[in-house]
Amino acid sequence: MKLAVYFTPGAVPPAALANKPVLVIDLLRATTTIVTALANGARAVLPAATPSDALQLAQNLERDDVLLAGERQTLPIPGFALGNSPLEMLPERVAGKTLVMATTNGTPALLAAEAGRPVLLASAVNFSAAADAARRALEETGELVIFCAGRQGLFALEDAYAAGRFVQVVLPPGSRRGAEYNDAAIAARDLARRYGARWKTPVSASAAARDLRSKGFRADVLAATEADRFDVVPRFERRHIVANGRG
Amino acid sequence: MKLAVYFTPGAVPPAALANKPVLVIDLLRATTTIVTALANGARAVLPAATPSDALQLAQNLERDDVLLAGERQTLPIPGFALGNSPLEMLPERVAGKTLVMATTNGTPALLAAEAGRPVLLASAVNFSAAADAARRALEETGELVIFCAGRQGLFALEDAYAAGRFVQVVLPPGSRRGAEYNDAAIAARDLARRYGARWKTPVSASAAARDLRSKGFRADVLAATEADRFDVVPRFERRHIVANGRG
Repeated sequence: MKLAVYFTPGAVPPAALANKPVLVIDLLRATTTIVTALANGARAVLPAATPSDALQLAQNLERDDVLLAGERQTLPIPGFALGNSPLEMLPERVAGKTLVMATTNGTPALLAAEAGRPVLLASAVNFSAAADAARRALEETGELVIFCAGRQGLFALEDAYAAGRFVQVVLPPGSRRGAEYNDAAIAARDLARRYGARWKTPVSASAAARDLRSKGFRADVLAATEADRFDVVPRFERRHIVANGRG
Repeated sequence: MKLAVYFTPGAVPPAALANKPVLVIDLLRATTTIVTALANGARAVLPAATPSDALQLAQNLERDDVLLAGERQTLPIPGFALGNSPLEMLPERVAGKTLVMATTNGTPALLAAEAGRPVLLASAVNFSAAADAARRALEETGELVIFCAGRQGLFALEDAYAAGRFVQVVLPPGSRRGAEYNDAAIAARDLARRYGARWKTPVSASAAARDLRSKGFRADVLAATEADRFDVVPRFERRHIVANGRG
């Protein structure tokens, strides 16, 4: 069994992803927010690289259930219906809707991971369900890629810790000996061991959390550390992210 | 005081380095090898991005003490006098010589770090001396960048652990509270805490070490973990890396 973690999307060799199961993590906040939106009844989320791509994509959809969502420099995008806060993704706002979403790190990371099969979205809020799905995919294929969005091309502590939490639990019992880890998988696991099971400590210490707090999103940081609130494991395929139950 | 670690050269914003003290680490093997060469009497080492750049640079030097050195895919470069092994850098081969060197990760990382002031080379073999020099630079400027070469643009465990060892010791006593760490500095320190002071465990577990062992360079991995063999802290300035003593 092969476990590979990438802390940033930039340098990942394309062959590292093609047709392998990929778990994409952007804990603060895109994957947390998308899991929440789908759990609360959104029909689908379409990731876009930029706000103008999102606008274009929304227009091309020719649907009347579309909401634009996302952030630039952490803040909502002028004219977009929703920001990138999990707290905005209430059933009364998103149920039945198609969200077209552009964020700084998360949606570009999803697009960069598109060659995976399947591409699954992970965060703390769907940790156990995502771990189960990743474990099944790993058993089927013998490989798993954990793909962190990072922050503007740089290492992000919250994503690395989350990656480590998955590294700790995705290997089926009996297959841990002899499993191959890349260097980042070893370091991520070490980080998870260091912090233990409390999401709040490493997530709150991250630069992304500091930035969110400074801009009034303290509650988003806390929401992102509420493990296992949802059983949804979103799957990204043919440009759409849709909900998969725990299965 | 600000401490920033970068695990890979690729995504580092140029402003993160300009005129700041930078510690460059490529433990397996370039910075270990360059420290060893200078400690054993080499006059200077000139880093080159590629073997053909090295050849060009050597020809332009118009000196008669030049030796070409380096590796491609871990192996010596055909026609070059020296590889990238610290064990080759014996006084009888390198004393008084100017080495022009091209390696896959280390010499490009040095060139990428060139905007720093000063740019210092660090490894386990000069750990305490490099830490002293970095601490002094940090006291003078209030900032320190620790710049890991990584491996083909990806996270390298041995460099990250080494970065963490420096993070643990470079802050002057009394300045630890209130010091600002970027996310990678926090994670590097966590790694160093996890492994403790034994270089051998994390360095031997790295992908670079596995690759070296598979190609017959087991002794290089061991040599790279011999802490504090040398007091030399090489400094890269105006295209030349030269030895600076500890004091």
